[in-house]
Amino acid sequence: MSDHEREEFLRVARRAREAAAGLAPLPRSVKDAALHAVADALVASAAEIVKANASDVARARDNGTSEYMIDRLSLSPERIEAIAAAVRQVAALPDPVGETVRGNVLPNGLELRQVRVPLGVVGIIYEGRPNVTVDAAALCLKSGNVAMLRGSSSAFDSNTALVGVMQAALEGTGVPSDAVQLVPGTSRESVKHLMRARGLVDVLIPRGGASLINSVVEESTVPVIETGVGNCSVYVDAAADVDMAVDILVNAKTQRPSVCNAAETFLVHADIADAFLPAALAALKAKGVTVHGDERVRAHSPDVVEATEDDWYAEYLSLDIAARVVDTLDEAVAHIRRYGSGHTEAIVTTSQPAAKRFVALVDSAAVMVNASTRFTDGEEFGFGAEIGISTQKLHARGPMGLPELTSTKYVVTGEGHLKGETPPAPGIGCSNA
Amino acid sequence: MSDHEREEFLRVARRAREAAAGLAPLPRSVKDAALHAVADALVASAAEIVKANASDVARARDNGTSEYMIDRLSLSPERIEAIAAAVRQVAALPDPVGETVRGNVLPNGLELRQVRVPLGVVGIIYEGRPNVTVDAAALCLKSGNVAMLRGSSSAFDSNTALVGVMQAALEGTGVPSDAVQLVPGTSRESVKHLMRARGLVDVLIPRGGASLINSVVEESTVPVIETGVGNCSVYVDAAADVDMAVDILVNAKTQRPSVCNAAETFLVHADIADAFLPAALAALKAKGVTVHGDERVRAHSPDVVEATEDDWYAEYLSLDIAARVVDTLDEAVAHIRRYGSGHTEAIVTTSQPAAKRFVALVDSAAVMVNASTRFTDGEEFGFGAEIGISTQKLHARGPMGLPELTSTKYVVTGEGHLKGETPPAPGIGCSNA
Repeated sequence: MSDHEREEFLRVARRAREAAAGLAPLPRSVKDAALHAVADALVASAAEIVKANASDVARARDNGTSEYMIDRLSLSPERIEAIAAAVRQVAALPDPVGETVRGNVLPNGLELRQVRVPLGVVGIIYEGRPNVTVDAAALCLKSGNVAMLRGSSSAFDSNTALVGVMQAALEGTGVPSDAVQLVPGTSRESVKHLMRARGLVDVLIPRGGASLINSVVEESTVPVIETGVGNCSVYVDAAADVDMAVDILVNAKTQRPSVCNAAETFLVHADIADAFLPAALAALKAKGVTVHGDERVRAHSPDVVEATEDDWYAEYLSLDIAARVVDTLDEAVAHIRRYGSGHTEAIVTTSQPAAKRFVALVDSAAVMVNASTRFTDGEEFGFGAEIGISTQKLHARGPMGLPELTSTKYVVTGEGHLKGETPPAPGIGCSNA
Repeated sequence: MSDHEREEFLRVARRAREAAAGLAPLPRSVKDAALHAVADALVASAAEIVKANASDVARARDNGTSEYMIDRLSLSPERIEAIAAAVRQVAALPDPVGETVRGNVLPNGLELRQVRVPLGVVGIIYEGRPNVTVDAAALCLKSGNVAMLRGSSSAFDSNTALVGVMQAALEGTGVPSDAVQLVPGTSRESVKHLMRARGLVDVLIPRGGASLINSVVEESTVPVIETGVGNCSVYVDAAADVDMAVDILVNAKTQRPSVCNAAETFLVHADIADAFLPAALAALKAKGVTVHGDERVRAHSPDVVEATEDDWYAEYLSLDIAARVVDTLDEAVAHIRRYGSGHTEAIVTTSQPAAKRFVALVDSAAVMVNASTRFTDGEEFGFGAEIGISTQKLHARGPMGLPELTSTKYVVTGEGHLKGETPPAPGIGCSNA
């Protein structure tokens, strides 16, 4: 069985690889027309898609899945309209492929250009939201990449229908219909095939909780971009405006608690704790937030529950927040370095030197000065679409838009240029001689 | 033993991590002064370094190491002067850290800046050239990174002496002396510790042959940048200038055969084969090159030996080259896609459409039009120094200079900005709600 599944996976992956070669050089007009064809086909096939989705939903109900998860899984004609509209929005975005990132004429007359090219085949591992199937395919197609999609097995019928509709819509558009691929099978094994497909798949983007991401990093030989885990902190400096600090904290925690850029911890300088904590704790309580505090926070209110070591690491994604009093800005930085996930941290301060030091020392994808952590987002940053928020340092860090789905290639044009002797430069380059 | 070695490794890695936090925010002036202190100390300690090196050389001789490898391993006062001069050259290069890569004011008034920051701790696995120990440390230091160095065990005494001198030189410069670290131990295990140090080491750059690089990619949980394997091809198009094509081919193959951007294969269009091959084979023969050709190449000379499937994959690094006649440009591209290592390919042609098609379809880090493959090099590209040539697509592709040793961070400055409701954008971002 496993052998058969692996054969089947390799067959699909090789077709994806082949499609990548055909997709990479296509001009924007062809890709945009294909995206519109996909959007039209999704709307036209809404009944068929909803029917397939109904079997996923029925299976989920039989398995006792929560209503919340069933809502995320469910498709309706209206939701399919919205998904199609998002595809049209992607078509309207600029094409990153072909952009000259840098270019100049070298002293010897060679023309050097570094141009954006697609990554190739992008593997995406995600959970039970079928809209991701279409969103990811559209972002990949626009950036010239083939999408190898591996959604949750709970949405397999929906995803099969959606990918079938998209593949059929691509026929005749100039974009290979193999440019959108569903990883065959629903077993744990099928994910492993994707993780071991180095040479066929260029990058893997796992979307989900920390344990999924860790297992992918552990097992994958394909390069991985880690996304989405957010244990974000708000630091209230000694020199903060108290009202602003309370507003930012409440917004960061409660405006949408279930997302990765919501605050999960706040740290307050001891010098301002007496002024800040009563107001902050009252405001959080009014919003239904449970505060998990250290002893010095708990001294301000009996409602604060005792924080454990686990609370400092927690990504609650709920109306909970960890809280600690610190004696210095550097102690806040040390706490963030130790427990944070490198996503987003905010400082609230009127002190320019404090802001500068916090920005310099905090090692996270985004650092906010006097703004809510909730602004770390591709749409807010003006990218128009987001494939995820990278919390690692290689390739892309922070919100990833279409350019982050590309690599580059150097194009060097000469007139018969030959290499002569040149003095060695510092470095550890390839010379084995 | 292994447990002790692992403890020892973790102790060093944690000190490296700590040093990274101190090194990242340092201004250029402090880093440059530290580099000059390192250069001065290397020259002043030449006798001590040469003595340590002599014990590596003696051990290598006892082991029957070739004179060629012993030459690569050997240090002399003159070579140490040259190594120190390279460190001073790195000091003279611009500092990539702090550069604003992009910046604008968002519609809501938030100021957004994406700035370059160091990667953190960079692990480098390399072979028996002790100059790499210093070159790598200097490039890392200049880009604000801590270097965790793991050279060949054959150079262990030399590397221990070099790192000792560098660490001592950093005392009092403001750069933490832990910013340069040698991985403890010489066993295979000690490399594994480095490969599994996710969270402590930010990136691993293996330098060496394909088998070393493959084993690192296979076993590492730390993100890896693959470098240096070059199976580069020259394609002689139907519309080539024959003299230019012969000159480029001979230069690409013979100017320095042992390096990764030397040509290992040439492909010639059938329409020009009768004009090109006699001249090319004679010119290569005059330079002592053995051609491994297919039947159509062999028809032109009895000196051409029969190419096997292995020859198409070979990175000879010697005076050998594989050769094949193709019927179309697309057949040349298909050959390169199948057998190439994605390093550098060249086309020789007077046809603009042929050049354009070759550049668009070839999926390699660098594509040369009417120029030798030998130009793919950080020094030639004007980067001033090179940490390696990436043959992968993530993070960096092609010659890597100092900016490729950095990541970025978003700095967002507001005046108490709070997030309001915004319409959802396309994407598969972190929203779990």
